[in-house]
Amino acid sequence: MVIIFKQNTEKSEIEKIKRAIEGDGCETTVSHGKDYIVVGVIGDTSKVNIERIQANENVDKVVRVQEPYKKAGRHFHPQDTIVDVDGSKIGGKRLAVIAGPCSVESEEQIVEIAKRVKQSGANFLRGGAFKPRTSPYSFQGLELEGLDLLKLAKKETGLPIVTEIMSADFIDRFVEDVDVIQVGARNMQNFTLLKELGKTRKTILLKRGLSATIEEFLMAAEYIMSEGNENVVLCERGIRTFETYTRNTLDLSVVPAIKKLSHLPVIIDPSHAAGMWWMVEPLAKAAVAVGADGLMIEVHNDPANAKSDGQQSIKPDKFDEIMKKVRAIAEIEGKQV
Amino acid sequence: MVIIFKQNTEKSEIEKIKRAIEGDGCETTVSHGKDYIVVGVIGDTSKVNIERIQANENVDKVVRVQEPYKKAGRHFHPQDTIVDVDGSKIGGKRLAVIAGPCSVESEEQIVEIAKRVKQSGANFLRGGAFKPRTSPYSFQGLELEGLDLLKLAKKETGLPIVTEIMSADFIDRFVEDVDVIQVGARNMQNFTLLKELGKTRKTILLKRGLSATIEEFLMAAEYIMSEGNENVVLCERGIRTFETYTRNTLDLSVVPAIKKLSHLPVIIDPSHAAGMWWMVEPLAKAAVAVGADGLMIEVHNDPANAKSDGQQSIKPDKFDEIMKKVRAIAEIEGKQV
Amino acid sequence: MVIIFKQNTEKSEIEKIKRAIEGDGCETTVSHGKDYIVVGVIGDTSKVNIERIQANENVDKVVRVQEPYKKAGRHFHPQDTIVDVDGSKIGGKRLAVIAGPCSVESEEQIVEIAKRVKQSGANFLRGGAFKPRTSPYSFQGLELEGLDLLKLAKKETGLPIVTEIMSADFIDRFVEDVDVIQVGARNMQNFTLLKELGKTRKTILLKRGLSATIEEFLMAAEYIMSEGNENVVLCERGIRTFETYTRNTLDLSVVPAIKKLSHLPVIIDPSHAAGMWWMVEPLAKAAVAVGADGLMIEVHNDPANAKSDGQQSIKPDKFDEIMKKVRAIAEIEGKQV
Amino acid sequence: MVIIFKQNTEKSEIEKIKRAIEGDGCETTVSHGKDYIVVGVIGDTSKVNIERIQANENVDKVVRVQEPYKKAGRHFHPQDTIVDVDGSKIGGKRLAVIAGPCSVESEEQIVEIAKRVKQSGANFLRGGAFKPRTSPYSFQGLELEGLDLLKLAKKETGLPIVTEIMSADFIDRFVEDVDVIQVGARNMQNFTLLKELGKTRKTILLKRGLSATIEEFLMAAEYIMSEGNENVVLCERGIRTFETYTRNTLDLSVVPAIKKLSHLPVIIDPSHAAGMWWMVEPLAKAAVAVGADGLMIEVHNDPANAKSDGQQSIKPDKFDEIMKKVRAIAEIEGKQV
Repeated sequence: MVIIFKQNTEKSEIEKIKRAIEGDGCETTVSHGKDYIVVGVIGDTSKVNIERIQANENVDKVVRVQEPYKKAGRHFHPQDTIVDVDGSKIGGKRLAVIAGPCSVESEEQIVEIAKRVKQSGANFLRGGAFKPRTSPYSFQGLELEGLDLLKLAKKETGLPIVTEIMSADFIDRFVEDVDVIQVGARNMQNFTLLKELGKTRKTILLKRGLSATIEEFLMAAEYIMSEGNENVVLCERGIRTFETYTRNTLDLSVVPAIKKLSHLPVIIDPSHAAGMWWMVEPLAKAAVAVGADGLMIEVHNDPANAKSDGQQSIKPDKFDEIMKKVRAIAEIEGKQV
Repeated sequence: MVIIFKQNTEKSEIEKIKRAIEGDGCETTVSHGKDYIVVGVIGDTSKVNIERIQANENVDKVVRVQEPYKKAGRHFHPQDTIVDVDGSKIGGKRLAVIAGPCSVESEEQIVEIAKRVKQSGANFLRGGAFKPRTSPYSFQGLELEGLDLLKLAKKETGLPIVTEIMSADFIDRFVEDVDVIQVGARNMQNFTLLKELGKTRKTILLKRGLSATIEEFLMAAEYIMSEGNENVVLCERGIRTFETYTRNTLDLSVVPAIKKLSHLPVIIDPSHAAGMWWMVEPLAKAAVAVGADGLMIEVHNDPANAKSDGQQSIKPDKFDEIMKKVRAIAEIEGKQV
Repeated sequence: MVIIFKQNTEKSEIEKIKRAIEGDGCETTVSHGKDYIVVGVIGDTSKVNIERIQANENVDKVVRVQEPYKKAGRHFHPQDTIVDVDGSKIGGKRLAVIAGPCSVESEEQIVEIAKRVKQSGANFLRGGAFKPRTSPYSFQGLELEGLDLLKLAKKETGLPIVTEIMSADFIDRFVEDVDVIQVGARNMQNFTLLKELGKTRKTILLKRGLSATIEEFLMAAEYIMSEGNENVVLCERGIRTFETYTRNTLDLSVVPAIKKLSHLPVIIDPSHAAGMWWMVEPLAKAAVAVGADGLMIEVHNDPANAKSDGQQSIKPDKFDEIMKKVRAIAEIEGKQV
Repeated sequence: MVIIFKQNTEKSEIEKIKRAIEGDGCETTVSHGKDYIVVGVIGDTSKVNIERIQANENVDKVVRVQEPYKKAGRHFHPQDTIVDVDGSKIGGKRLAVIAGPCSVESEEQIVEIAKRVKQSGANFLRGGAFKPRTSPYSFQGLELEGLDLLKLAKKETGLPIVTEIMSADFIDRFVEDVDVIQVGARNMQNFTLLKELGKTRKTILLKRGLSATIEEFLMAAEYIMSEGNENVVLCERGIRTFETYTRNTLDLSVVPAIKKLSHLPVIIDPSHAAGMWWMVEPLAKAAVAVGADGLMIEVHNDPANAKSDGQQSIKPDKFDEIMKKVRAIAEIEGKQV
């Protein structure tokens, strides 16, 4: 961390801040320029209270050099993390493909879709049981019954289950029944939930918040990891921008950015990003080409009657077609599906 | 709701959608243009599954005419709501002024600040006990001990307490001890929490999410109200934009917008919006001039040593000065402090 | 400027950059920390090529301490600038009120509106002759004929004319006929045009670009001023954000921000910001309360038949009403209309 | 176009708007619902003044069905446009690769880079002669001398020249010397310039504005095309969002969107989007996978001493490496480099 003080700051003011920083276990060095005074801070600065320093009227700028995350950062963990979900890997040389409907609607629906996506090469089944919906009057999911149906589909196909948790209330059921627990974009900074999930050892699929910076995204992962759970997979699903043609704007540059900053696997959800089924194919291909560790795709056997997200769901035949193209690009990237 | 079908849509496709809509209890009218076919939907469209209609390939556009919220909307509730917190009103002719520190830090701190802000004219005391922080390594609040200290400060000053809840875990304690329960920006779409709060009869101060549209903001209020709790106060605290000079961009146009769309009171938090103490005064004055029902301001007796948000906190003397100016503008607006 | 090098940077690399900076006329100081090396740069850094330094693989971060603008900045020009337009002032104790139609449409229209807004207290007349329209098929303005009509209205009322220039082609006519030359939001970074206007001594009303940061806004002013024309007035007219309820999001915090960073006057255009006539009043009041030096308001005698911007134009009677309220707030702020 | 009137609108008001629309050459149909009245507008609605309709207090919403662009739209021009630049094609089965330095700096520099990028497979040479820079104190380009140097490089390599025009002043020189005239992001809505370029028959490379919607982007193309020049190539180069880790956020979904809405070719500039050289490779690959018709990449033989954009420029060896990977993905997409 580097603190830039204004030119005429009195020594006593600088001393006060130096002492506070040293009290947090860091060392400082001071150098006097003509126009400003620079204080360098050395050591683990993650505990230094930046806001308190910024609150000082003599401080012009505070610049962090170290990233604020430790467990999620690549600095102390240079090798890529490969998360192991009962043998199915996310990260590394195998492309993770998570497919399935937005919502679990019935046994017939989820089992049928699970079989179809497995045939096409998916290695995880998604399906929402608890659904965060903008309107309280929209379908809110089958809830616990949905979890039961997902288990049936897993029994039929062997595909591990990915499904979203909306609060810590049912965390024991999720730990028991679910293979990968998803935290949705709207809960990315539900810190209470993140801490509880950090106490489990389940794989957590953490979706980027609608307007979360990359740093905030990694800090949300840090919340989970700081409690001891290092099985975190990041998922970009589009950010909110001024453009309204697409539901959200898919930020694919997040993949190389996270690969540089972090060791965690990162996957892409083109369905939620675009919000239109016909964009899923090109965006899925781009995601693989940009280096993503996996894809999360909404597939429905009857989109026109889906209880949610019909407009962005593709049919199983289309999914099969996309998988063929994705496979070809993955091979160029040295990855297998 | 108006549905615009593409020119060559077959009658059977239109019939299918008409039947689905009529199944949701609405009526439809069809008119054929040269370039497109328009289906008007009449009745309570809040239960119609728009996504399902959009998923139909023949549909060009779906346009809502009615707003999707009912309880939060002004349509069925034309008069302004005035929320009553044990005699202290929010909404109407009295400007609500909520002031206090970002975090409760000690008895001495919270009581001292409470007394000072009361003297200057604040009618509610704010103070964070549970703190949502970007970093897991930052101060997370005194938690339940913080609630106890707030109660002491209330005992000393009589000021009703406003404090943030971060999950439904401690909802009983909050209902017992707190006068206004705040839902922070990061939890604006924590629907599980909203529903639980909807089951209480406490006043809920709902902060706008960082990237929530006005419609999503009102739909979050609708979540609370649809469970039976109509004591909702909305709070704008800045939205996330490309501009980084300010912490967030305060969107004051939200006040006239919400006054048009909804009957709920709306207040402004200039401290979080700007993120810099010296901007609080001009933004507070603008908030009153634009028609806000109240202000929420961070006041600290020692900002340079505050455990959080020091850079945006003002000192009690400055708060006193601001209140004088705010009072003058409030009078022009026909309001009292 | 402070440059932070990575820990293991070789001395020769640092020397190379030091020499380049010293070649640009600045001095440097180096201090070695354990985790990084800090090079402080002292002197006029506005000519240092930051991108070149950032291109060096050993450089971790480059932090500017000085602002990149000089003539527009308050640092070397501490007193507020008051622009004098043939006796009418912008800045200081008098609130500038610029009112008139979006487009000049006819002699009758512009003269009638000019008379009405003058009566209500406007001290400048606006009216578009050259209109930047999103569609080539929309009304593009009366062009040079529009300038003639504005001159007629000025002759009738004495109000100085504010109108937009769209390219340097007609700059001589504008210098001859117009009192304040407006640069629209879309041309804020039309650097060729800015430089040409910098060579005149006319007052330039520079509108903030739709997605321009405050720094970019001031740098656009610097373009004009660096050519010798210091008569620049800044105008905030809403920025583009994710919110679509309003046409743009009015960023009122820009007023205190610019007052801190710059000595130039700054005014607010609530009409373009909101895009809805009924929001003009509350936003105009807020603009005065936040400390703006003036207002720019679209007034039309027949909005429902206006050739452009009818939805955001107010009628003369409404303008008169708004002026009364604005005047009351201006007085509290120590300003006169 | 569909106009939704409020429930109690008087017939005379609706008649007034009907007559205005019919005066613009369109037909109307009226249907009365219980809650609202819908007026459908049929015909070429591009000349209908929407703002005037929205200004009517009885109008609730105006919904466009037709897109507002005609020449740029796919509706009246279903086949993909392939632009022919003296035999070099943009669009169709050949991937256009435009490479070269940000700024032309010297004969040696531009000729050397031109040779290197040609060897690696580039089929166009880029190089800035007139440079739009945020600061008036930054290098502004060699201007006309830069054009001369580009011609030399073309003579040596045969590569057609792509370079940016900043105002209509030098349009004759550009038409004479340049093969593809680039309009930069900041000038995307410099309508005067667009119209002048529309009068030439040169290929225009139109970059998307920093905060331009897809519709505004296509309307800017329409400005050029409406004057008669149909040789337009669109270029996405990143949009402005809240994320600051990357210089801009590359919006790759624009490629399938434009392919659906328009027949014009669309290429991607990963260098300006990311602003960091190490992101160029993954984003270039993603651009080809998503279906772009070409790439525009900044290549410099000495980025650490480049006069501009050094931090995002790659070296010729790296460009060669990227081209190999891009070629492999292009082949899967059925395209050649």
